[in-house]
Amino acid sequence: MKTITLVAFDNFTDIDLFLMWDILGRNRHDWRVRIVGKQGRLRSAHGLLVDTHGALAEANQADVVLFARGKEGVPAALAEPDFMNAFQLDPTRQLIGSICGGSFILAQLGLLPGRRAATHPEARGALRAAGVEPDQRPFMSVGNVATAGGCLAALYLVGWVVERLFGAGKSLETLRPVLPAGQYELYEKIIVASIREGRDGTGG
Amino acid sequence: MKTITLVAFDNFTDIDLFLMWDILGRNRHDWRVRIVGKQGRLRSAHGLLVDTHGALAEANQADVVLFARGKEGVPAALAEPDFMNAFQLDPTRQLIGSICGGSFILAQLGLLPGRRAATHPEARGALRAAGVEPDQRPFMSVGNVATAGGCLAALYLVGWVVERLFGAGKSLETLRPVLPAGQYELYEKIIVASIREGRDGTGG
Repeated sequence: MKTITLVAFDNFTDIDLFLMWDILGRNRHDWRVRIVGKQGRLRSAHGLLVDTHGALAEANQADVVLFARGKEGVPAALAEPDFMNAFQLDPTRQLIGSICGGSFILAQLGLLPGRRAATHPEARGALRAAGVEPDQRPFMSVGNVATAGGCLAALYLVGWVVERLFGAGKSLETLRPVLPAGQYELYEKIIVASIREGRDGTGG
Repeated sequence: MKTITLVAFDNFTDIDLFLMWDILGRNRHDWRVRIVGKQGRLRSAHGLLVDTHGALAEANQADVVLFARGKEGVPAALAEPDFMNAFQLDPTRQLIGSICGGSFILAQLGLLPGRRAATHPEARGALRAAGVEPDQRPFMSVGNVATAGGCLAALYLVGWVVERLFGAGKSLETLRPVLPAGQYELYEKIIVASIREGRDGTGG
């Protein structure tokens, strides 16, 4: 049973967390997905109150660690020693990823290979200012670290995680239940191509 | 200021509610979106606790009413008189829609034109058993009532709502922030075509 940890914080962008949560949460046999945060309860950017499942430190033992985004949430988290110091992540034994502005956290944790990341188009200027080169692709992976940009690119990030853990077949099987009815082939082509084109030829 | 009500219940499917919530919640000027439920706090199918913003009856005054889905949540809601009797909806003055199994609620409320609806492929058999003809398209609209199937078809449902309220330009402007980086044209083509092909030529 693999463990997948979704890292959140106050003012996380609702969909960035919930999309990964919902897609991964449908499988209760191959992995266990948990939302961790500094507080027992977090408030989303749009004001939803969500109870977390565990402490940030859980991420350090997880097989997979994915960081959500938050326009105000990420800067606040980056400035919080209690938040940043909780992480002792290791890309040699963990799959690590971020959606949109979550890449700023990976950058500050020194986890971005080549200090390059995919992120939300609106965040590219700030990413460059943080010393990270924004990648124009919606998804990019180098080895065990992946970044995605644009909320729905969470499909590519989740697809990559499941493919790395259980193979391409299980990846599509995991995503299919959330795809629009009658358009599976159309979306699966886009998903497979986006994950493949995001690879930097290092086995990622 | 338009009012958009998202109707939920215990065991609602996480992403079906949160995707509509997040996309619509980014605009605070043209409309106000609220989640209503029978209880002040609802538990999602995957166990998230979410506080609602108001009572079910709010839906009766809203400009737009959208029903979430829930594999166990919808059957339970259908069997609950307090839930079903709270609604006095009127498609002549309201835009009404559902995602996936939410169509069962529209069916029982007698709101489905021609007793036909788009829904999640897995729910088509049960829909037919409920006396409703499943439409194979991911999205269909007839006049002021629309149904969508497959969680991500919420993009089409939300797009249709905004297009009907504020035009096609505002619709794409509303969806763009959640689309994968660098793939706006690709997804916008699919979204526009899916909404158009879902129309039954009655102005929907």
